[in-house]
Amino acid sequence: MNPHAPTPCFDDVLAAAARIAPHAHVTPVLRSRALDALSGAGLTFKAEHLQRIGAFKFRGACNAVWSLADDIAARGVVTHSSGNHGAALARAARGRGIPCHVVVPDGAVRAKLAAIEHYGAMLHHCAPTIAAREALCAQLQAATSATSVHPYTDPRVIAGQGTAALELLTTHADLDALVVPLGGGGLAAGTALAMRALAPRCRLYLAEPIGAADGARSFAKGELDHDFVPDTICDGLRGTLGAINFDILRTANAQVLTVDDVQVVAAMRLLWTRTKQLVEPSSATALAAVLANRALFEGRRVGIILSGGNVDLDALPALFATATEAQP
Amino acid sequence: MNPHAPTPCFDDVLAAAARIAPHAHVTPVLRSRALDALSGAGLTFKAEHLQRIGAFKFRGACNAVWSLADDIAARGVVTHSSGNHGAALARAARGRGIPCHVVVPDGAVRAKLAAIEHYGAMLHHCAPTIAAREALCAQLQAATSATSVHPYTDPRVIAGQGTAALELLTTHADLDALVVPLGGGGLAAGTALAMRALAPRCRLYLAEPIGAADGARSFAKGELDHDFVPDTICDGLRGTLGAINFDILRTANAQVLTVDDVQVVAAMRLLWTRTKQLVEPSSATALAAVLANRALFEGRRVGIILSGGNVDLDALPALFATATEAQP
Repeated sequence: MNPHAPTPCFDDVLAAAARIAPHAHVTPVLRSRALDALSGAGLTFKAEHLQRIGAFKFRGACNAVWSLADDIAARGVVTHSSGNHGAALARAARGRGIPCHVVVPDGAVRAKLAAIEHYGAMLHHCAPTIAAREALCAQLQAATSATSVHPYTDPRVIAGQGTAALELLTTHADLDALVVPLGGGGLAAGTALAMRALAPRCRLYLAEPIGAADGARSFAKGELDHDFVPDTICDGLRGTLGAINFDILRTANAQVLTVDDVQVVAAMRLLWTRTKQLVEPSSATALAAVLANRALFEGRRVGIILSGGNVDLDALPALFATATEAQP
Repeated sequence: MNPHAPTPCFDDVLAAAARIAPHAHVTPVLRSRALDALSGAGLTFKAEHLQRIGAFKFRGACNAVWSLADDIAARGVVTHSSGNHGAALARAARGRGIPCHVVVPDGAVRAKLAAIEHYGAMLHHCAPTIAAREALCAQLQAATSATSVHPYTDPRVIAGQGTAALELLTTHADLDALVVPLGGGGLAAGTALAMRALAPRCRLYLAEPIGAADGARSFAKGELDHDFVPDTICDGLRGTLGAINFDILRTANAQVLTVDDVQVVAAMRLLWTRTKQLVEPSSATALAAVLANRALFEGRRVGIILSGGNVDLDALPALFATATEAQP
């Protein structure tokens, strides 16, 4: 939203951690012998599905909301989001007692829209295109003077998302690799900032659905490539990689690993049955990437950020059926 | 299996805790603001779905297996079980390196049968009646000299199941009520033994599916009433209440609360979406009972044992659909 925003650094992640501490959970870290055996790696899961609003997104939204001066905050915040960021901003705004407007694309996950409304935000519907979302967002911003908080390019959001890896690496500095889902790149970039300071020898891998692989193509070309129409069950990863995020991730020498929806559903089912944790499809991309790239991870200590757990249970039968039909 | 078995007491629960400590997990305790708000009570969940094999049943089976003298243990163990006890005994027997035979009724949950085989037990199929199960079990016992470990009347099993409440009450002695699912009564009776010693003023409630309400009828009549054909989605609670269990529970002045399958599925969905924990239908009976009896629990500190998390994902669409159709 603000092309001149400064690139956040590790100090911003530390400041975010202090700022959100009264509001956000320090999420637990989970292990699974069964998944260690399946992957051949030593997996450590950061349970962000147990974060408030059921996703890491609360960290960034909370940091942004509490970064605002009182008079600016009072005018409210506005964003566009397919779901978790909208819920996160709504919840953070309610925590500060300020208005929140959320632009949501038609076709967004029903459970996530219900959550946004539950937290007291005003919903504004638009067509499911980036252009339509941003236009309505700008219109609302002009009408209300609310502060726009972009879901993943806002530096305050990136710094906030980095606090998940900050917590993980503070207690698990010996990880060889860290795997996070890649959508717009907010979590990925924040994670990169924390890793640079706390675990410089740990390698960052980005798990991306093949049906929204603008990240993989951008890395391959060396420049942003947004020319795609998302086609994946990973509703949290359909956004396009942000420019600031791409810069941070290239500097971090991150590597993109793509996975298809069948692999994602298989990994999600493994997480459900082996760890009893209800994570959403976007979260399962990371484990799917580890299982699909055994040579990269075997015998290594691998951190995985389970990014969220907001599953639309009514859509489950279709989700499972789609994945089954797609199998050979 | 042994009508002359002694009734277990609190010391047996303590001994069980020491015996299973090297093998079982001390499971975490979970809270949920959202479910507190919904119920009007202060809920504390004991997360037995995170126990080994995904259910509290590992505690009792483990205690039974490690109670055996070496020469007796070497002949193996045998049981009949619709699922979790079979998996638990198989896993415990593998831990001790002894054979395990499990008699399973036709129609048992596929995911649970797969688990039993995964843990290395020999499966023996029979018709889905108590008589057929017990006959085949006796036949196997005669042929192998294996020790029979009944799923819920064995005193070693009851004492082992009591260790879940022992852990919970050791850190949460101030609970006003404790709600556990009621099937055969192994968990319920073990819980009663722990409560008597650690929280004598805490009231014990037993959540039972209306489609397998032999417990409610037995309490109403003052004697065991096994005249029913189970009809419930709670596959872990279809067994008939044991005599020894009934005695312990009457002494404890426990109260049965019945819930129907629609209430169970609704409570299960709440647990999934609000806590992100994948618990099985049988586990959700306890929360369902709390939500259906607000007057009993409002404003009180209520412990709930989440008994297991072994859900058959392939059966989910049917499960959800059945519950929806049954709604008015």
